[in-house]
Amino acid sequence: MFNFQIIYQSKKTLARIGKIITHRGVIETPVFMPVGTQGTVKTMPPEVIASLGYTIILSNTYHLYLRPGPDIIYELGGLHKFINWKKLILTDSGGFQVYSLSQFRKITEEGILFKSHIDGSEHFLTPITTMEIQRKLGSDIMMVLDTCIPYPLSYEETKILTDLTHKWAVESLEYWQRHKNEKQAVFGIIQGGMYENLRKYSAKFITSLEFDGYAIGGLSVGEPLEIRNQMMEISVNYIPHNKPRYVMGIGTPLDIIEAVIRGIDMFDCVLPTRNARRGTVFTSTGLLSIKNASFKSDSLPLDPECECYTCRNYSRGYLRHLFHAKELLVYYLLTLHNLFYYAKLMEHIKIAIKTETLEELRGNLAEYYSKYVDNSK
Amino acid sequence: MFNFQIIYQSKKTLARIGKIITHRGVIETPVFMPVGTQGTVKTMPPEVIASLGYTIILSNTYHLYLRPGPDIIYELGGLHKFINWKKLILTDSGGFQVYSLSQFRKITEEGILFKSHIDGSEHFLTPITTMEIQRKLGSDIMMVLDTCIPYPLSYEETKILTDLTHKWAVESLEYWQRHKNEKQAVFGIIQGGMYENLRKYSAKFITSLEFDGYAIGGLSVGEPLEIRNQMMEISVNYIPHNKPRYVMGIGTPLDIIEAVIRGIDMFDCVLPTRNARRGTVFTSTGLLSIKNASFKSDSLPLDPECECYTCRNYSRGYLRHLFHAKELLVYYLLTLHNLFYYAKLMEHIKIAIKTETLEELRGNLAEYYSKYVDNSK
Repeated sequence: MFNFQIIYQSKKTLARIGKIITHRGVIETPVFMPVGTQGTVKTMPPEVIASLGYTIILSNTYHLYLRPGPDIIYELGGLHKFINWKKLILTDSGGFQVYSLSQFRKITEEGILFKSHIDGSEHFLTPITTMEIQRKLGSDIMMVLDTCIPYPLSYEETKILTDLTHKWAVESLEYWQRHKNEKQAVFGIIQGGMYENLRKYSAKFITSLEFDGYAIGGLSVGEPLEIRNQMMEISVNYIPHNKPRYVMGIGTPLDIIEAVIRGIDMFDCVLPTRNARRGTVFTSTGLLSIKNASFKSDSLPLDPECECYTCRNYSRGYLRHLFHAKELLVYYLLTLHNLFYYAKLMEHIKIAIKTETLEELRGNLAEYYSKYVDNSK
Repeated sequence: MFNFQIIYQSKKTLARIGKIITHRGVIETPVFMPVGTQGTVKTMPPEVIASLGYTIILSNTYHLYLRPGPDIIYELGGLHKFINWKKLILTDSGGFQVYSLSQFRKITEEGILFKSHIDGSEHFLTPITTMEIQRKLGSDIMMVLDTCIPYPLSYEETKILTDLTHKWAVESLEYWQRHKNEKQAVFGIIQGGMYENLRKYSAKFITSLEFDGYAIGGLSVGEPLEIRNQMMEISVNYIPHNKPRYVMGIGTPLDIIEAVIRGIDMFDCVLPTRNARRGTVFTSTGLLSIKNASFKSDSLPLDPECECYTCRNYSRGYLRHLFHAKELLVYYLLTLHNLFYYAKLMEHIKIAIKTETLEELRGNLAEYYSKYVDNSK
């Protein structure tokens, strides 16, 4: 069972509030998915993630495939049981990590040959093998294998990689039609790089295939914001209204609201969790680095406006001390705060959609986050 | 307010159940204190520690003195508020860390000159300065400065260091009489190394001074178990019946019950927390290393007999995966398990005292832990 319903369509923008209904539960969109790379959202007991209001997390097929391996996870009852997470999981295809982490890779018509970043062992990832791995993991939403298109890249090369993405999408869907089950959904991915007509071409092709939802891939790879927004708009234009739209790997608070305004429903990003481990937190007045000497004996919480566990109980002075002493507790406390911030951000966005005040919220976020660019990739 | 009451005195051994009553609350003895070196019991949110039943933790004066410094902690409302721990805190004097961590140290009649292990800066720790630091921290139980006596050490040298401990104890108490407050208690420390008559000499001298409780120092430094037990027995013999007895830095499950049988009320040790971070956990059938390849696809919890959060929710296979992937969550999950084990151990010991079955419990622990020696120092 996988069903998407639109609860409210903004009258001023493409933004909408929706519901994804699955056998494992219902999630409201727009939704942000914390990233649980290796079978854990770093530092977070799953109950804490759920207590912040999260209903879905993302896990990385590449990492889990290499370690501990899909067979072990399958034997131990599937990914949900393995990691003790009772809500939804979306798994990516592994394509992006092969692209970004592997020392060596070779793309062929059939798939991607790569060497593990852990032990250098050789592996061959194909549209079929990634589906097989994700079936073993038992994720609720599976992503098809696509190609990663860097920016900038020539038109010709972009076209070749986009066509390969299309070929793989077809193969994935054919495989899925033979092995369908009621518990998993499959999303297709639109590519096309930063070329207007290639985006249209890819959006048209991918949305002609019967997927449960559609992702817009290849954004946030260093392109100017206007181009990103344009590519998003082109892609959304082709995605059926009644299917969830997912923009992968985005982003900053401002990135997210810009995408929501353009009709995007689903997000994932390492920013809140990775920033936390580097001592950077999101606040109602912008970013704050807990490392600063000025916080040495500061009795204020990270964000006096915030009501998270960390802000209710700890001073900047204490958190700075823990960070400098490399105490493990600090990574938990800062991650919790940042995930709380992102959860609240999504709540505020939903309220703003319903009250038709998205522009005001965007203005507010722009005041504090307009200079903040996501360098996480 | 600091009051110690004996609730039950074992008829077969020196073991007893007691209550320490302070302005901040009541703790039952025998009690184990998790170690919070730098203002945090590593990886543990304080509420989790409290939820396991702990009523008192130990914090290290040496570490907090060097970083962030007692003045910052004082400015931020004292150690309890700083670290968000609402129950009791015992602080040591710093003497042991100066001995074990500092690259350079020089003992004089007045105190110990040492260099910080963090930045090499020079500091001079005296009986008075450690009291001043602990007053600023606002701990509930303060320890006086003593000398650390290695094993083996000649009689003459042991005598000199023991006499210095006595001189410092007198100075500490004189200082305290001038600066007494109702919220803090002070414990003296018996030394005397591993020489029977020096232990007697030190126990007699230290217990002649009016402290709120008495610690037995200098044990678990590599001495044979029989000698340790003998030194403990000598010391306990001199400590007034109505004062809490604390043996510092001990120990393994078996060490603890051996000490309880000899009349000890209070314990602290890094074993449960440090072992956890190294992948070693305490179970009802002995130690287990989560690193073992045999746990790769093991669906059992760490200890099928255990009811802690970790054992109720996670398989050995998952925990092994997290440990090998160096995922921060695993240090939390294993620490929680080990602290749960120690909390339950203390509960079982209290029940065994009341039911006069300490010998059976010792036999049971000896079966699984007799070969386990604490190398944590």
